[in-house]
Amino acid sequence: MSQEDLVKKAAIPGKEALRLHPFYKGKIEIVPKCIIRNLDDFSIWYTPGVAEPCKKIKENPEEVYENTNKWNNVAVVSDGTRVLGLGDIGAEASMPVMEGKALLFKYLGGVDAFPICLDTKDPEEVIQAVKWIKPSFGGINLEDISTPKCFYILERLRKELDIPVWHDDQQGTAAITLAGIINSLKIVGKKLNEVLFSIIGAGAANICLIRTLIKAGVPPKNIIAVDSKGILHPNRKDMDEMKKKNPYKYDVAMRTNGEGREGDISEAIRDTDVCIAASKPGPGTIKKEWAARMNNDAIMFAEANPVPEIWPWEAKEAGIRIFGTGRSDFPNQVNNSIGFPGIFRGTLDVRAKTISDEMHIAAAYAIASVAEEKGLREDYVVPTMEDYEVFIKEAVAVATKAMEQGLARLELSKIEIEERARKIIDRARAETKCLIEKGFIREPQ
Amino acid sequence: MSQEDLVKKAAIPGKEALRLHPFYKGKIEIVPKCIIRNLDDFSIWYTPGVAEPCKKIKENPEEVYENTNKWNNVAVVSDGTRVLGLGDIGAEASMPVMEGKALLFKYLGGVDAFPICLDTKDPEEVIQAVKWIKPSFGGINLEDISTPKCFYILERLRKELDIPVWHDDQQGTAAITLAGIINSLKIVGKKLNEVLFSIIGAGAANICLIRTLIKAGVPPKNIIAVDSKGILHPNRKDMDEMKKKNPYKYDVAMRTNGEGREGDISEAIRDTDVCIAASKPGPGTIKKEWAARMNNDAIMFAEANPVPEIWPWEAKEAGIRIFGTGRSDFPNQVNNSIGFPGIFRGTLDVRAKTISDEMHIAAAYAIASVAEEKGLREDYVVPTMEDYEVFIKEAVAVATKAMEQGLARLELSKIEIEERARKIIDRARAETKCLIEKGFIREPQ
Repeated sequence: MSQEDLVKKAAIPGKEALRLHPFYKGKIEIVPKCIIRNLDDFSIWYTPGVAEPCKKIKENPEEVYENTNKWNNVAVVSDGTRVLGLGDIGAEASMPVMEGKALLFKYLGGVDAFPICLDTKDPEEVIQAVKWIKPSFGGINLEDISTPKCFYILERLRKELDIPVWHDDQQGTAAITLAGIINSLKIVGKKLNEVLFSIIGAGAANICLIRTLIKAGVPPKNIIAVDSKGILHPNRKDMDEMKKKNPYKYDVAMRTNGEGREGDISEAIRDTDVCIAASKPGPGTIKKEWAARMNNDAIMFAEANPVPEIWPWEAKEAGIRIFGTGRSDFPNQVNNSIGFPGIFRGTLDVRAKTISDEMHIAAAYAIASVAEEKGLREDYVVPTMEDYEVFIKEAVAVATKAMEQGLARLELSKIEIEERARKIIDRARAETKCLIEKGFIREPQ
Repeated sequence: MSQEDLVKKAAIPGKEALRLHPFYKGKIEIVPKCIIRNLDDFSIWYTPGVAEPCKKIKENPEEVYENTNKWNNVAVVSDGTRVLGLGDIGAEASMPVMEGKALLFKYLGGVDAFPICLDTKDPEEVIQAVKWIKPSFGGINLEDISTPKCFYILERLRKELDIPVWHDDQQGTAAITLAGIINSLKIVGKKLNEVLFSIIGAGAANICLIRTLIKAGVPPKNIIAVDSKGILHPNRKDMDEMKKKNPYKYDVAMRTNGEGREGDISEAIRDTDVCIAASKPGPGTIKKEWAARMNNDAIMFAEANPVPEIWPWEAKEAGIRIFGTGRSDFPNQVNNSIGFPGIFRGTLDVRAKTISDEMHIAAAYAIASVAEEKGLREDYVVPTMEDYEVFIKEAVAVATKAMEQGLARLELSKIEIEERARKIIDRARAETKCLIEKGFIREPQ
């Protein structure tokens, strides 16, 4: 497909979105989930009856998980400062994305997510807002918050809240990418703790990926990261400034790059086995001749949207063996939507207090296993949304890890977790189908 | 029915609530309201397509009402400081009430309400939290917040937000009570601007009721209000302290009680035509012999829960002609649930920027008209939840008043408002029925 055709094709969802968003005027709604046989039932669900479960929760706060929907409520929180490729568009303009996320949460993971778009951009205020609204929610999904504040916000909230807080642009992307790396390495027959990584871009996704890789067993010295100013190393001229402005990136500069390599992207890529780019949209961010400098059996994920850092055909011509992007119209899509719904399903179902890095790494291995079971190919190293089992396997893996780590409030067997996840997700899909069939969700004109 | 029987009967909903809350584990859930024909549709609802409506809203913020569910989203906000008759039970323990409110919002008004229970009790922080979460919502319903801060919070938010903010314990109760007064006065043939009022209790409901009565045409001198320390008048010893602690009550003390009456409840009630009590649960808060001191054709609403300030039979024996309570098992229930769903329906449907006092007064007249059309009786001066038309009439009255006052973002004809309200409410009920019929909402065991 030519670039022109691609651009044309890429415009179709946008056109449909402009037509159908005003048609539906919202992508999610609230419905009752308890019986209403007649209006007298409101004396059970509201005053006077409701006082009893209130008293029960007052006596034992954990009862809120038994008597309300908190166990399944997730706030999709954004300050609208880094929305998709659109940048800082503000809270209201980010609403369609956060509603879309809530839609995916329900349909793919059976999670009741609600968009909370915040009218502040101050990190301390975002943290404060989340802390105040916390009682209603079993978990928090941060979304589309700019760097470096997103690192700080996530770190603080993970530390200070007793419910799981997740930033999908960090942990979600890292989990799927790691899954792709794990499976790609199987195909080429290399080992995670032996290969050399080039990491292009040092934003939310890659800073978290680097931490993830290290926790998953990659020696820090085997990681060469590069940002817009060049390869990260302890002697870069801007280290003092970086330490102040972005201590998370500073930490990467201090710990990685064992050989002390310096230079630009072309130099970072040289002689590496795996290249992960989450940087500036291409094409041309990674030149073909740079990609050609990688080792044999090279693996590359070029995740910029809407256009990857390098076109797939250029990557192939450069000798890249396994190549993935963020786009659904190319093979090996690194798609967050195969991650967070199942990861939250498992997390919520054991009432985990946090989502540890070990939990999202467990999810990555679960994601990888689904593709492996279906048969790995160079153009199929990660599952797609159609691979329903991925959500169930993630739920089991994540919940199990949470229990192992002592982070779960509930103890369930693997079979219980699996059955529960399957039941909840199946119900969400069947419910949606029913609402369409019965005309409560209209067919578009 | 004896007091013993009443207590026994009153315990039934609580027992059912304790059984059924853990059965359903939540009273509302999130469902998709847009089509999902297959997983490719997520490219319309999420990235990449969703970027287009985002850009549209960025260009013109009003587009958020066309492209998202903001138009129909209401936050049910509480700090859990005055929950039902339970007092300050905290945010988590208030969740069952706020979920119940959301359930009523949907079933009776077609409104998508979501519980936001706040982990702070500081009024400035409650205000700040609401201001931060505002972008996601078309309206705010404050609930179960203690006095006097609830006055301050409502006042500030009404002034500072461009979406409607409502405190149901204030405006909602005032609207229904005013409706009951209007109809009762019709029966006894007295006029609103001529009768003498005794107002027992000076909490959220009555302070707002007094303001409402004055705006509805009652001369302030005709209102005699009494709190736990006695009748309010400008020479009370605690006026300086009151001015600091509760300027809203202070204002009432300064403006009302033309004859400068002093004394306790028994003295406040003497020779008045209408007595509205929203104070301490009875029985015996208002003694029979005190009630007997009212004028002929006396009207009394004793709204304390769970037990009214005086039993209905005692009121009758004391010669009260029209008597109402807050309870569903006695005639003339002052029930907020016949108010807020329709009031918000009308407010949201014209995208009103606030809910003015004139709007809730218009609602009161609409509520009154529904009972009048069905035929007023001494034991039927306010409609019940079964009177479906009340929600439609309120929506029309409130929306029309908003347009008249220049508070509406949208201009619709009365017929359009009515049809729209009817369609949305009917859909909510039919959808619930469908979810029950298809087993997505199970029958309780």
